[in-house]
Amino acid sequence: MTAGLPHVVIVGAGFGGLEAARGLAGAPVRITVVDRRNHYLFQPLLYQVATAALSPADIAYPIRSILRRQQNADVVLAEVVGVDPARRVVTLRDGSTLSYDILVVASGARHAYFGHEAWESRAPGLKSLEDALEIRRRILLAFEEADRETSPDRRRSLLTFAIVGGGPTGVELAGAIAEIADHVLVDDFRHIDPREARVILIEAGPRILPSYAPASSQNASDELRKLRVEVWLGHPVTSIDDTGLVAGGRRLEAATILWAAGVAASGVGSFLGAPLDRHGRVPVQPDLTVPGHPEIFVIGDLSVFTHQGGHPLPGVSPVAMQQGRYVARAIRDRLAGRLAPPFHYVDKGTMAVVGRSAAIAEVMGVKLKGLPAWLAWCGLHIFYLIGFRNRFIVMFEWAWAYVSYQRGARLITGNLETPRKG
Amino acid sequence: MTAGLPHVVIVGAGFGGLEAARGLAGAPVRITVVDRRNHYLFQPLLYQVATAALSPADIAYPIRSILRRQQNADVVLAEVVGVDPARRVVTLRDGSTLSYDILVVASGARHAYFGHEAWESRAPGLKSLEDALEIRRRILLAFEEADRETSPDRRRSLLTFAIVGGGPTGVELAGAIAEIADHVLVDDFRHIDPREARVILIEAGPRILPSYAPASSQNASDELRKLRVEVWLGHPVTSIDDTGLVAGGRRLEAATILWAAGVAASGVGSFLGAPLDRHGRVPVQPDLTVPGHPEIFVIGDLSVFTHQGGHPLPGVSPVAMQQGRYVARAIRDRLAGRLAPPFHYVDKGTMAVVGRSAAIAEVMGVKLKGLPAWLAWCGLHIFYLIGFRNRFIVMFEWAWAYVSYQRGARLITGNLETPRKG
Repeated sequence: MTAGLPHVVIVGAGFGGLEAARGLAGAPVRITVVDRRNHYLFQPLLYQVATAALSPADIAYPIRSILRRQQNADVVLAEVVGVDPARRVVTLRDGSTLSYDILVVASGARHAYFGHEAWESRAPGLKSLEDALEIRRRILLAFEEADRETSPDRRRSLLTFAIVGGGPTGVELAGAIAEIADHVLVDDFRHIDPREARVILIEAGPRILPSYAPASSQNASDELRKLRVEVWLGHPVTSIDDTGLVAGGRRLEAATILWAAGVAASGVGSFLGAPLDRHGRVPVQPDLTVPGHPEIFVIGDLSVFTHQGGHPLPGVSPVAMQQGRYVARAIRDRLAGRLAPPFHYVDKGTMAVVGRSAAIAEVMGVKLKGLPAWLAWCGLHIFYLIGFRNRFIVMFEWAWAYVSYQRGARLITGNLETPRKG
Repeated sequence: MTAGLPHVVIVGAGFGGLEAARGLAGAPVRITVVDRRNHYLFQPLLYQVATAALSPADIAYPIRSILRRQQNADVVLAEVVGVDPARRVVTLRDGSTLSYDILVVASGARHAYFGHEAWESRAPGLKSLEDALEIRRRILLAFEEADRETSPDRRRSLLTFAIVGGGPTGVELAGAIAEIADHVLVDDFRHIDPREARVILIEAGPRILPSYAPASSQNASDELRKLRVEVWLGHPVTSIDDTGLVAGGRRLEAATILWAAGVAASGVGSFLGAPLDRHGRVPVQPDLTVPGHPEIFVIGDLSVFTHQGGHPLPGVSPVAMQQGRYVARAIRDRLAGRLAPPFHYVDKGTMAVVGRSAAIAEVMGVKLKGLPAWLAWCGLHIFYLIGFRNRFIVMFEWAWAYVSYQRGARLITGNLETPRKG
């Protein structure tokens, strides 16, 4: 690495940050990728870790290994706690600093409770591997406790799983929990029938998967009902307490509540001095930079981008990846003295999985459902997993789960006591 | 299950407890297996989780799944906090009780610091999946911190890994860490050469692997030195502090210290009212029962058994498994009104792995080393893993690691801050 080259600091090694780093391979820049984690995480499969189908290592990969052969890239495991746009300096948790010529902020989002932060311990969300292992622990412990419970009311509560939020994560979690109860655990208990479990997907709006076409929402609801998932529409959650929740005025006793209802942008956005929207996201210009700071790009879930006259782009991985690739090209253009064209998102479609052989997909205007959508989903997700090993293991785990109805990662680790009181 | 049948309570679902439970399949008894964990753990491969080669789910399996088809067996996830031998009652953490007709205690051992409990946070041991993930975190974080460290002294300390105790676990950990440094991480850092790492195996006695033949100890030392592991013999550790340790009067600055020097029996032994040896183990009679309590069997690492005129049996899995099978047969004999013959251990050999293509084995008096010993070790350990899925995944991970020099589970999870101060 030559000290005289422009220094590109990339904060966050998710879909967007990694694409930006890889797109700059061989370019005349020094790159430093800063992430709080040592691993890249394939978030679309995180719900499968939460539901004991996959292991953390199957969907995560060391950032250093991904960039090992890219000689112009360095990796720093650290948390960013400040940015000084005037001095062009990033401050890390240990007090050290990194000077940049170009800054790419791609630090993503976390789940948010919109003023109800006290709900977090009762209704954990799903963004990190730790979140996934905590959710896995709660789901599996609930069945264990129910098996030993003698009070019928308490047993019913232990076997009630409420998922708040009808977006893709909520739909995927609900479907996967119903499958565990009906197929994976069915012969394992002597005092309960896991099929007694109730799985309830609670959505405040009039339909689940609101970013999809209405017909796809209907298909997903139908598939969920086939899995015995109850779908409550138009039921905004107004309170969560030790024993359950209230949604749309309706009381539900549930020992396990999972939160899939909203995300807020990472705190790094607030360091930039730029205006934020109400979700904490940074509205960016047509070239994905911050107004007044052409040397600061913000991409992925932390940013909000709107095509002229259109809707803001959703916080999904294809947007982040295309933005990462765009930023790499824009930086190369600048170094060559060319003006970069504005960013343009190409929507190649969206998909969500409901369960075994059941998914919905919207690709190039075509709506798929059932087995064809599910196979397309499996293929696409394996394709995007990094590394041969991870692809192979995930393929094997899925094939194994499909034929055996077993789950490979049914472990309760960490705290043995349950934090639930209800 | 018929309430009138004798109730066999088995505490601990390790090698011994599970063999006892499975050996009673179809017998006219009710069985309750109590364990603090929901999973059986294949402990001989735990060091591979600690060194990022395998995932927790690869070496752990739900106890319920193992016993799913055994209709006379029930599983309870709970911690035993008391035993009343007079009333024949076991008390669980939540205050509930289990009455037994026959009690089989197989709750194993944990690592012990023999009066130096303060060392535990600085020098963690390896007994559970949580221990393994913590050790993995510390090893990987040490390299990350070294890469960013500017002080040469501190960097040297961060790249020094001390393993206290030259038994099989210590040998396996030392060899695996040396391999990570030399092969897995070698191209991944820009500011350090991971091959600068020092791995030091510290043993108080005159040779490593003291329970093996002297020639095997020598072979293991030779193999370790080929991997650049330093072996300090005759160096008892007398202090461990924030920056390092003192062994045999010699000071060593080391950020990472791992404890493989000793185990103590699980606390359940103290509830039985029987005399314990200085490691907290229960000396058992020729039929593995507690003196004065023919209805209480104690097996595995929690017990100490001595053949007439011989040495006490070592705390290894073959002993626990043979004792578990013996207990099942002895209970069947009793139910049939027959007198059980005394337990007799058949030593089929021992083996320990040092590294890639390097192991030592003593089988039927024959001493193997190098590749033949290593292949025997791989085969045997895969054979004893429960379940087709786990066998397949472990085989794949090993083949993959062997050809690619990669590690599939190089994740730092949990606490992002390091608890080390040194």
